[in-house]
Amino acid sequence: MNKQYTITTLGSHSALQILKGAHDESFKTLVVALKKHVSFYQRFSFIDEIISVNAFSEFPEIEKKLKDKKIIVIPHGSFVAYLGMEGNKKMTLSYFGNKKVLDFEFDRVKQGEWLKKSGINTPKEFKNINDVEFPVIIKSYGAAGGKGYFLVNNQKDFINKIKLFRNKKFVIQQYIIGVPLYIHYFYSPLTKTLEILSMDRRYETNVDALGRILFNVDPSYVVVGNSPLVLRESMLPEAYEMGEKVVKKSQELINRQGLFGPFCLETIITPDQKFYVIEISARIVAGTNLFIEGSPYADLLYNEPMSTGRRIAREIKNSIKENRLKEILD
Amino acid sequence: MNKQYTITTLGSHSALQILKGAHDESFKTLVVALKKHVSFYQRFSFIDEIISVNAFSEFPEIEKKLKDKKIIVIPHGSFVAYLGMEGNKKMTLSYFGNKKVLDFEFDRVKQGEWLKKSGINTPKEFKNINDVEFPVIIKSYGAAGGKGYFLVNNQKDFINKIKLFRNKKFVIQQYIIGVPLYIHYFYSPLTKTLEILSMDRRYETNVDALGRILFNVDPSYVVVGNSPLVLRESMLPEAYEMGEKVVKKSQELINRQGLFGPFCLETIITPDQKFYVIEISARIVAGTNLFIEGSPYADLLYNEPMSTGRRIAREIKNSIKENRLKEILD
Amino acid sequence: MNKQYTITTLGSHSALQILKGAHDESFKTLVVALKKHVSFYQRFSFIDEIISVNAFSEFPEIEKKLKDKKIIVIPHGSFVAYLGMEGNKKMTLSYFGNKKVLDFEFDRVKQGEWLKKSGINTPKEFKNINDVEFPVIIKSYGAAGGKGYFLVNNQKDFINKIKLFRNKKFVIQQYIIGVPLYIHYFYSPLTKTLEILSMDRRYETNVDALGRILFNVDPSYVVVGNSPLVLRESMLPEAYEMGEKVVKKSQELINRQGLFGPFCLETIITPDQKFYVIEISARIVAGTNLFIEGSPYADLLYNEPMSTGRRIAREIKNSIKENRLKEILD
Repeated sequence: MNKQYTITTLGSHSALQILKGAHDESFKTLVVALKKHVSFYQRFSFIDEIISVNAFSEFPEIEKKLKDKKIIVIPHGSFVAYLGMEGNKKMTLSYFGNKKVLDFEFDRVKQGEWLKKSGINTPKEFKNINDVEFPVIIKSYGAAGGKGYFLVNNQKDFINKIKLFRNKKFVIQQYIIGVPLYIHYFYSPLTKTLEILSMDRRYETNVDALGRILFNVDPSYVVVGNSPLVLRESMLPEAYEMGEKVVKKSQELINRQGLFGPFCLETIITPDQKFYVIEISARIVAGTNLFIEGSPYADLLYNEPMSTGRRIAREIKNSIKENRLKEILD
Repeated sequence: MNKQYTITTLGSHSALQILKGAHDESFKTLVVALKKHVSFYQRFSFIDEIISVNAFSEFPEIEKKLKDKKIIVIPHGSFVAYLGMEGNKKMTLSYFGNKKVLDFEFDRVKQGEWLKKSGINTPKEFKNINDVEFPVIIKSYGAAGGKGYFLVNNQKDFINKIKLFRNKKFVIQQYIIGVPLYIHYFYSPLTKTLEILSMDRRYETNVDALGRILFNVDPSYVVVGNSPLVLRESMLPEAYEMGEKVVKKSQELINRQGLFGPFCLETIITPDQKFYVIEISARIVAGTNLFIEGSPYADLLYNEPMSTGRRIAREIKNSIKENRLKEILD
Repeated sequence: MNKQYTITTLGSHSALQILKGAHDESFKTLVVALKKHVSFYQRFSFIDEIISVNAFSEFPEIEKKLKDKKIIVIPHGSFVAYLGMEGNKKMTLSYFGNKKVLDFEFDRVKQGEWLKKSGINTPKEFKNINDVEFPVIIKSYGAAGGKGYFLVNNQKDFINKIKLFRNKKFVIQQYIIGVPLYIHYFYSPLTKTLEILSMDRRYETNVDALGRILFNVDPSYVVVGNSPLVLRESMLPEAYEMGEKVVKKSQELINRQGLFGPFCLETIITPDQKFYVIEISARIVAGTNLFIEGSPYADLLYNEPMSTGRRIAREIKNSIKENRLKEILD
């Protein structure tokens, strides 16, 4: 039955995980890949079909060719980066997830309100430059993959850095001193339950090398990989609660469906064991790529290897069985 | 046969791993959880029963209710933290492990002697403040989870920090410059063999973030998670030997049974590839939570996923089969 | 059929992984271990036979005893360290791999040419001390396991450090500021395809502790372990290409067979997401020990647990089936 449907995504970010998961749940799989990456995606036997493009911006043309197939598109971090928010919204193929969440995710003010109103702990934001309490991190709107972040600890440095943002939108956020933890959630609209499937920390260049270097180097926060982590069990109930609060608030703030499927809370944990949520990603994050064959957290919930990619396919499979597919597509 | 017995623990630390392991070995499972965490533990299908308490200090009352069941309690790091050493000793339910080890673990002087007499390498300890060779780390007695540690590198700093310990017991330990490695052992009293099941390093806030920050911040050592590691194979024989020495010495120093079941040596490895053992935990440690479905080391020993939690249940199962259950309970 | 052959290696580095992999592929297994490590290797049931020696330099004598068995030797990082390049070349037992690659790996000048001619990105090397652009890293020839490396950032420091290299061969390499990533490849001469099986970063003492320490300490780079990583998917095609370029160039530069079997590119990734290859290891590296039961990358390629050690045994098994064993032995 699943074989009638083809799970599709862009060839980047977490495409391998998504398509392997789809294959393991008996779907057909199709990747839209850059011409130069076609031979790369051909290496993997779980990919049934590859459509090549010169640039991901050609996606709307591809859509036309695919409209007679039963396609389900799984969005990931590269979708907004390459198609833009409008490109995502205009997509005519079936899209796993709730597109209305995009407005709240990509407007930093709306995202901040969503998180704050959820009742979870977030860093202070400073609107007025004179109110700033150092250290702060300046983030440009649309900064992705860790680019466009600047950590500053004094007025002089601040004045220099802020010049880089001339004519750009940005937020000034309190810099929380503590260790990062990225929590990978999955909310099922079918069963109305939340699962934590895995956790990671990002591997950022060059900032994750600075501790090894004796001389001063300007830090940058470009994400090039991920490494695995587990959290103290006594803090795990709170990690679950945070996820549930964010889902619940989205159902009030955005629309009845709210946020569902995979999402990630990006947290900093301070020495008093407090979580600060610095950002939400309302989709699968690349840190889940560590856990193709399961994670310590997924292993507590499933008796088989369960990646986030496979969990998405499982949700689609379950919704087909229950004749509720429409509820999870947009 | 195992189904006659119920494996029980407090809902914290490594309870999920312990109970999943027990379930995988066909035991019934019961968790004693804080009221606010009941809904959290209900998420996991391998937990058969949940008893809720307002505080873990109510445990003695719970014990009375459970005395007619065939309960086996598995202690973990939260047991001493919440019940105190006396609370552990007074427990009337069957307790996996040797309670006499507690005296040697929680008295820092006795622990230091145990380790030193075992013939393993330990940091110097300074009794007289005037003898101190910097850097040193000051640790309060009963410091747990990384709280109550201070690293100092000069006389002035030392004098300031030591004031925080007024009226408290503490030790002054040589600070070993090197990388941390936590080795997770299991000693089987049934087969008299030692196994290394996994390894980790702790994830500590904020000290594991300091390398990413350009300005000065006071370090703290609060453990909030763990990340996986493997050790150079040429050093693995020594890791095994250290574990065996500690077990053997415990049988002379403590009592005939000595230390058995899971334990952890917390080591620092210096650039000359020398291990310094800075602490022993005579029970399951939270770093094992990384390895719910096995680790590189367990995979060398078992042809099935073997966590430390499951290994405990396996030992109990084997002792039931051999009619030797009494030997491993206290 | 495989049972006619015995897979053999020295007891160190990645022997456990290699021999477990061989056992899983139905070969007999034999380890040549130091006398003091015999009891250690006896712990593992997948090792069929242990031959003890007082020093690995006795290997040539052991060879004579083994010549009537059908032995296949799998080299690893300890082979050159203990037998020397000449010792490897003189080995009379069947040796998995191409010994001619050794000349290009262990001469730093030849290795540098190989990498550069492959068309991959490498750090600058400075022949003339006056040309040096700081920071640089000075590496002695034959430096292994991270010993004999010095990072210097100014003329004064440079002059001091260079004295340590008097009468020794060394290279002066541009120090690339970024995060390290070690990529574990396997090239099959049977199918002429390249696989990425896993990735890691090294765990080095004391340099990986310096970020946790507030005072100045001289860095050292001694490898004592490894921790797992995944790479951003958008950079994975390039990781594959780099591996293919190095293999292809080796077939032109070294001989028709070129580099095959397991190898590792040791890279630094800079904030502009550029790889710099700082070294090649033309054999199994210890970072693969993390992945005894598979890795996120192996799991994309195989539906069963596939370590690099097992992959080697699989290649030998396939070559026996196809009657092409001679092609992969030297």
